[in-house]
Amino acid sequence: MKVVKFELDKLMLLDQTKLPLVLEYVECKDYLTVCDAIRTMKVRGAPAIGVAAAYGVVLASKEYENLEINNFKENLLKACDELNQTRPTAVNLFWAIERMKKIINKHTEVSEVIQELEKEAIFIETDDLEMNRKMGRHGSALIPNNARILTHCNAGSLATAGYGTALGVIRASSQQGKVSMVYVDETRPLLQGARLTAYELMEDNIPITLICDNMAAYCMQLKLIDCIIVGADRIAANGDVANKIGTYGLAVLAKAHNIPFYVAAPVSTFDFSLESGKEIPIEERAADEIRKIGDVYIAPPTANVFNPAFDLTPNELITAIITDKGVIKPNYTQNIQKVLGNGN
Amino acid sequence: MKVVKFELDKLMLLDQTKLPLVLEYVECKDYLTVCDAIRTMKVRGAPAIGVAAAYGVVLASKEYENLEINNFKENLLKACDELNQTRPTAVNLFWAIERMKKIINKHTEVSEVIQELEKEAIFIETDDLEMNRKMGRHGSALIPNNARILTHCNAGSLATAGYGTALGVIRASSQQGKVSMVYVDETRPLLQGARLTAYELMEDNIPITLICDNMAAYCMQLKLIDCIIVGADRIAANGDVANKIGTYGLAVLAKAHNIPFYVAAPVSTFDFSLESGKEIPIEERAADEIRKIGDVYIAPPTANVFNPAFDLTPNELITAIITDKGVIKPNYTQNIQKVLGNGN
Repeated sequence: MKVVKFELDKLMLLDQTKLPLVLEYVECKDYLTVCDAIRTMKVRGAPAIGVAAAYGVVLASKEYENLEINNFKENLLKACDELNQTRPTAVNLFWAIERMKKIINKHTEVSEVIQELEKEAIFIETDDLEMNRKMGRHGSALIPNNARILTHCNAGSLATAGYGTALGVIRASSQQGKVSMVYVDETRPLLQGARLTAYELMEDNIPITLICDNMAAYCMQLKLIDCIIVGADRIAANGDVANKIGTYGLAVLAKAHNIPFYVAAPVSTFDFSLESGKEIPIEERAADEIRKIGDVYIAPPTANVFNPAFDLTPNELITAIITDKGVIKPNYTQNIQKVLGNGN
Repeated sequence: MKVVKFELDKLMLLDQTKLPLVLEYVECKDYLTVCDAIRTMKVRGAPAIGVAAAYGVVLASKEYENLEINNFKENLLKACDELNQTRPTAVNLFWAIERMKKIINKHTEVSEVIQELEKEAIFIETDDLEMNRKMGRHGSALIPNNARILTHCNAGSLATAGYGTALGVIRASSQQGKVSMVYVDETRPLLQGARLTAYELMEDNIPITLICDNMAAYCMQLKLIDCIIVGADRIAANGDVANKIGTYGLAVLAKAHNIPFYVAAPVSTFDFSLESGKEIPIEERAADEIRKIGDVYIAPPTANVFNPAFDLTPNELITAIITDKGVIKPNYTQNIQKVLGNGN
């Protein structure tokens, strides 16, 4: 099932806040609806946000098609900035918008800009899917036979243009008959593991065991986990990784239990402008995401809350980073440069 | 607010599954209702379960008061066995029932047995409260000024006859002006942290910050945590601790971040018959505790689930065990014996 469907003058986004019980698309006829869908996490997952934002720019270009070229570009670049500001941590969003801005600046006719933006968005989408399949091939070489793999959050087909980053590696390994169990962290507060990862792996008949986040350490102690694979929202030039809150704790636990810890991410997730992860801004979200589930309070309604959406895993805790261009191992600063160049 | 209220011929148990939104007592007029309340975790927390079970035996004795002494004792001992089998991990339950069985075996008149059982149950309750206050005094000596303390699950007045074990230490430290913040893990799946600990500390005007379990590691990385205090459901003779699922992971993370990790528990929590924690049975609970919140599924309804209610923390990860008889530090096998004797 596709997360993003572009149909002439509208973008259909699978509403991931309602899965797995309700399968419903949000219809976006303008870029502001796309902004809202990203902000409220109806579409989420770093690569999927990038794809949705690219189509958001296409929608904006059609909203402004009757303006003369300078006015058109000015409004369009403002729309790009608004899309850029919807989420602060994942870099794929900025990466996609940057590509769209280059198109805007390059062409001189309104109709030509619109046409080229649409081509570029389609390219970003199909390229993401292709990168995921490549990551699957590279990453599956790291997975042993009868592997019992732990994953966190959703880095699957629902977080990307399809196939998935971490779940792409799991899918490829499963097709090779190597996956005996996937332990799925439920991933509080928004439960992307329970709602999305469990769902999409079950749809693919890959065996899963759902656990609460606080059970992962005990599973490691019981020797139920052979390796951990997660996605990423931003990777600095030294290999430090920002990813869904809870990732850092898993990486520390993996090291303490001698379990390999892998990160799977396409080149669009790397931020070569940041020397280390310390510079990555970590989004904090609303307190009620923790205090409520659905409409029901599960904590005192006035409880003080800390709700970071991401955390930072330092490179020394990461066994390897799986990219579409190959598997990168330490020393990351050197080897990221060697495998990916500077991203251009 | 009292968890357990005994009123002549009935036991009132505060229904902890409904807190913090609804404050309601379950009325138990017979021991089977007490069994059910323990099994369904309307009453929970190792010491509180012990107190409730003791009063359950008192109710049973009144149910059988018209039987002749041999028949009376036979039925009463059967009721003790049923109460014993309601939860497998916490030892305070077995400890309390053992004390009640001694009373049953010691006396020869039905009315005398009933009277002495009631006295013993009241003693177990008041003694637990007294032990918690002593733990508070001993434990608060370990807490630095301006302490930012992380706690997991609920080891508070709602888990005991009052005051609490881990939260008793926090209360005593707070009264000494030493607590600047308590980080409260929400504690999935049953959310005892969000529902109970946040609630009872807020009632006492102790500052809290509620977090999801998977945020604890990041808080440690940010240097927001000075120490961790948890309760215990059973402690082996070597100091290995069974406690709410998630405890082991916190202990590993604490060690990795050089943060002291304390366990607070009364003598009734020690199981001197077990050389190590490996022999402690770990309860597994129903899959729907994870798949549903309230009546709503938050995961595919047929998802395979692993739901251990407790985990095991090996003694080498524990900085000190705070008991009513004093603070115990490694070597635990020697020092537990020295401070507590063999528990008799």
